[in-house]
Amino acid sequence: MARAVICLSVCLSVCLVSSSHIPEKMNKTIHNLLQHYKIPDKERYNGTPVFSKDLLTGKMDDWGKRVFVSEVLEVYDNLIGRMLSQLPSAGSGEAEDCSDSQSSESQVKGQLCYLLNLVRNLRKHQYKNQDQDRNQLVQGLESLGNIQTDNAVVQSKALWELKWLYQEGSSLAEKRMQRRRRRRRRQAQRVKTPLSG
Amino acid sequence: MARAVICLSVCLSVCLVSSSHIPEKMNKTIHNLLQHYKIPDKERYNGTPVFSKDLLTGKMDDWGKRVFVSEVLEVYDNLIGRMLSQLPSAGSGEAEDCSDSQSSESQVKGQLCYLLNLVRNLRKHQYKNQDQDRNQLVQGLESLGNIQTDNAVVQSKALWELKWLYQEGSSLAEKRMQRRRRRRRRQAQRVKTPLSG
Repeated sequence: MARAVICLSVCLSVCLVSSSHIPEKMNKTIHNLLQHYKIPDKERYNGTPVFSKDLLTGKMDDWGKRVFVSEVLEVYDNLIGRMLSQLPSAGSGEAEDCSDSQSSESQVKGQLCYLLNLVRNLRKHQYKNQDQDRNQLVQGLESLGNIQTDNAVVQSKALWELKWLYQEGSSLAEKRMQRRRRRRRRQAQRVKTPLSG
Repeated sequence: MARAVICLSVCLSVCLVSSSHIPEKMNKTIHNLLQHYKIPDKERYNGTPVFSKDLLTGKMDDWGKRVFVSEVLEVYDNLIGRMLSQLPSAGSGEAEDCSDSQSSESQVKGQLCYLLNLVRNLRKHQYKNQDQDRNQLVQGLESLGNIQTDNAVVQSKALWELKWLYQEGSSLAEKRMQRRRRRRRRQAQRVKTPLSG
């Protein structure tokens, strides 16, 4: 009896963890929409997904992964918006108005609106800062790509700025080392003094 | 006497911290090179630096700052390489060979080589992973910019992939919240139990 209870609770917790973020309605909605947006299996399973999983399953820092996800969510926002505007019933841009999806005549529209709201809520509540960071980082990297390294004024200015940037670069690297050392110390402490209760 | 010693040690520690990452030779080298690569003050101080400080002095996560710095260092690597190849004595690409800068005929070349080696060492020892992460992140974001959101096959595939990505996105956001909670708990613990010795 005890073993059965343990098995049941383990199964339950595994199920809860694995599906923790996917509402059942989302599952069903996607399933239904895939009946509408049907493509041949050989196209679906041709080995080239729209969104590569490499970055998210790789060793990149979680901050970088969140920056990537913030862009993925923006693409989904645009993509579902595009799908809404392509519906036969879509008027002049009204299709994207999901504020009153309950009264929608089209079942597909209601389902797309439901997904769009899920995506938008995740963006709004969890990825707002990442959107800003991503824009700032992308713009920063782009501006670096436009630097005219053969221009005499740029060269002289860059020499002038090297000290501050070298200092910042060294200091950021040192901060990372210190954080790593602190983490290792904490882990060692945890091994020494296991938590009570 | 005791006060003088304290003052001296405070001064020393401030000096050591503020100039901890800038070798004195680097300071002098840049100063000397700026005599060679002289530009009018009104160009130097025109309010538009080559490298904007906004990102590095802002609130962005240190990981993002390190990604930015890794690109800054790459630009410096190219820029100093370009300055070397523009020296009058530069032969067919030989100017960039800094392996034997001691025997360099040109003083400017020796000084540029010294800075180039500083930049390259910082890149090699502290920013190797950031280079990889940056390339992967930039490529990932670029590939997202190329997604054809009005293509029916892409739309259907993207619906199919939404579940996994939504789960990943939610899970990454949750991990960040957990980390924040842990950090707050640690800070509270530290206030409760000050470290001995």
